[in-house]
Amino acid sequence: MNNQSIRYGLIGFSGRMGIEITKLFLEFGHNCVFKINTQCEEFLSNQKVDVLIDFSSKDMLFNSIKLAKKFNSPLIIGTTGLDANQIQLLRDLSNSIPVVQSYNFSTGIQLLLKLVEFVRGYTLDWDTEIIESHHIFKKDKPSGTALMIKEKIEKDIPISSMRIGGILGDHKVFFGNLGEILEISHRVLSRRAFAEGVLNSALFVMGRKNGFFSYSDVLFSGKEV
Amino acid sequence: MNNQSIRYGLIGFSGRMGIEITKLFLEFGHNCVFKINTQCEEFLSNQKVDVLIDFSSKDMLFNSIKLAKKFNSPLIIGTTGLDANQIQLLRDLSNSIPVVQSYNFSTGIQLLLKLVEFVRGYTLDWDTEIIESHHIFKKDKPSGTALMIKEKIEKDIPISSMRIGGILGDHKVFFGNLGEILEISHRVLSRRAFAEGVLNSALFVMGRKNGFFSYSDVLFSGKEV
Amino acid sequence: MNNQSIRYGLIGFSGRMGIEITKLFLEFGHNCVFKINTQCEEFLSNQKVDVLIDFSSKDMLFNSIKLAKKFNSPLIIGTTGLDANQIQLLRDLSNSIPVVQSYNFSTGIQLLLKLVEFVRGYTLDWDTEIIESHHIFKKDKPSGTALMIKEKIEKDIPISSMRIGGILGDHKVFFGNLGEILEISHRVLSRRAFAEGVLNSALFVMGRKNGFFSYSDVLFSGKEV
Amino acid sequence: MNNQSIRYGLIGFSGRMGIEITKLFLEFGHNCVFKINTQCEEFLSNQKVDVLIDFSSKDMLFNSIKLAKKFNSPLIIGTTGLDANQIQLLRDLSNSIPVVQSYNFSTGIQLLLKLVEFVRGYTLDWDTEIIESHHIFKKDKPSGTALMIKEKIEKDIPISSMRIGGILGDHKVFFGNLGEILEISHRVLSRRAFAEGVLNSALFVMGRKNGFFSYSDVLFSGKEV
Repeated sequence: MNNQSIRYGLIGFSGRMGIEITKLFLEFGHNCVFKINTQCEEFLSNQKVDVLIDFSSKDMLFNSIKLAKKFNSPLIIGTTGLDANQIQLLRDLSNSIPVVQSYNFSTGIQLLLKLVEFVRGYTLDWDTEIIESHHIFKKDKPSGTALMIKEKIEKDIPISSMRIGGILGDHKVFFGNLGEILEISHRVLSRRAFAEGVLNSALFVMGRKNGFFSYSDVLFSGKEV
Repeated sequence: MNNQSIRYGLIGFSGRMGIEITKLFLEFGHNCVFKINTQCEEFLSNQKVDVLIDFSSKDMLFNSIKLAKKFNSPLIIGTTGLDANQIQLLRDLSNSIPVVQSYNFSTGIQLLLKLVEFVRGYTLDWDTEIIESHHIFKKDKPSGTALMIKEKIEKDIPISSMRIGGILGDHKVFFGNLGEILEISHRVLSRRAFAEGVLNSALFVMGRKNGFFSYSDVLFSGKEV
Repeated sequence: MNNQSIRYGLIGFSGRMGIEITKLFLEFGHNCVFKINTQCEEFLSNQKVDVLIDFSSKDMLFNSIKLAKKFNSPLIIGTTGLDANQIQLLRDLSNSIPVVQSYNFSTGIQLLLKLVEFVRGYTLDWDTEIIESHHIFKKDKPSGTALMIKEKIEKDIPISSMRIGGILGDHKVFFGNLGEILEISHRVLSRRAFAEGVLNSALFVMGRKNGFFSYSDVLFSGKEV
Repeated sequence: MNNQSIRYGLIGFSGRMGIEITKLFLEFGHNCVFKINTQCEEFLSNQKVDVLIDFSSKDMLFNSIKLAKKFNSPLIIGTTGLDANQIQLLRDLSNSIPVVQSYNFSTGIQLLLKLVEFVRGYTLDWDTEIIESHHIFKKDKPSGTALMIKEKIEKDIPISSMRIGGILGDHKVFFGNLGEILEISHRVLSRRAFAEGVLNSALFVMGRKNGFFSYSDVLFSGKEV
């Protein structure tokens, strides 16, 4: 898509997503010029930071905003569990710097949400159900993504949740009537799915002046300037 | 949706689809006023035929067109294997009478085709595959529906076909990359799926002057006059 | 398997299972010589009844037992919701007449139960979950079959139940750990699945003197005399 | 299961399976005392090697056998593509040292093979099909595991192969007739599935004098001494 090499900064570089992002960006020839976690901070080059990526924890948010301002670079943030105040801080920041904030950087999930929204309008009198399956370490039930799907359907539909072994994340949506079933399903194979969304967001955001975007905006309004 | 009772004629009333249509239309309070198969022809009432439905065989087409003209009633035709000449005859007829012609009256399949077309644009560098499963009596392989799906994807993708027991018709489309898989699947539970499409078509077509429609037109241009 | 023509009696011939049994037995050349429902009773031949099949209601049980004694013919009974007293009446009957009693005459479900029992022993520290999907008219939740599966697993595992459209009956059992998932699934395509089990039971039971059997006995102890 | 700490040697420590084995064995408190790849060889302790694990390449086999003899330790070998001569060398070795040789150390696949073998006997007149899905880098088609499944079924059944994105390995076996479908499926979530099989094999093999074993033997004859 884009041949330029991105010089990125990474907040939370040693977490699972940090490692995955490092791997994918390296594969595409992009350079990490700054990295930080709770233990250490390192400048790997004295080059400008083109984009700053934060997959650390919500407690680091204040520092992440400070860094984005200092570097004057766009911020992509996938930290979970942000509260309303924190979202507002990001919106304020987005007046001067472009910000992409999302709880799910998977392209497939964003597509699924669009599909569900489309199907909904043609199946108002059908039955709809959601099943999601995740690893046994997941704390929330149902998953945040399942709740996002339900919101798109705008009906009070049942969500079944399974917690089995090491499943990274399966979501299935069923629309059915007496004669037929339509199913839309998504399955995460590896965290690379999310890292690709971060890379898409980086390519989208570089060169913009400001603005607050979700990953859905990145995918579906790519033609805008 | 619509409270009016439809007075319909049915060509091929004793075939599997004929029986299913009869059952569904009865359930919604519609009246069969004329029925015909290769053995017999019966007027069950001397009322006007609001709509004529043909699920017989392509060899009956000439007669079906004659009947539609005679009754001056819209024609819904689900006969399979029509050749180019026969389609042209139906197009000619549609200048004076509305015609709905489709090889698949399932709402779910029409939705799946739309979804696939949408996803395609966002997954150009993903892998795509189709699997279809049908009963062991099915003669064509891959299914006509699988070929329709492939056509929407506009790439030369593999289709796997399974022929097992009594499966009425499963179609699965997979879009995947290294990190994730998006799947769109359809499963026919009973031929009622198709009968519902015929009923939707009947409600769509009544009151129209003329025009040649597919079942996709019925579903997705319902707001047109 | 067996070339002899069975002369069978059918209690509850006009119910859904009655119709399915009639169709399947006809296909294999077996003759209905007696049929009864709540409205009427008919001897279609004055031949001996080789086997009596009851898919009516538990309220008819007393009459069914009377008929089995009168005809002195084996009884196959698929009536649901029998209470302990009624089961005891059948056990008493089985001292003089062979009886096959089961709540699920599907061969696939009986196989699934065996498989689950086998896998269980090798996956004691894996996670196990059941999902079952049925049509919206099903009253019990979870399904009786899901409860039977859970009983085989001998652990307090979660069962998720979906009620969607016209699904005749899907059951899925998952065994998973951090590295892998094993799934055993069953899907009813038509009530023919159960009618085949009734036919297998008829072939099994004819020529026996007495005994109380489940459909599991029919399948898995076929070599016994 | 077993509290003893295993002191293991690892041939091919830097390959994908080598890394996975190292991670899992560490998690359970086992110690790598010797490791080797094509570049280097390292003794991490001067302790005895309890078991030697080889996930390198078939070209290393001769050296692996030499090492097993030198250490006088059991050998677990998951190297793929061994030829008949190489298998014979391992059988010769197994006269004096226990050897576990397998092309698939997944417990779930071994269970699936057992289930398929059992179901086969009860579904001789059903239709059977296999689908396998793997990542796009897989060279063989169908997969070796699919061929093993087919062999258990002892019929010439179709295998459909999908190559999509990053799927580590899915195998599905379907048994169906006109009324029902029984499906047995397996899905690899991570290479940990295979590492667990290696650990099970290590615990099985330690303390034995000699013998040639498959991973199926490890799982299903665990009660033997």
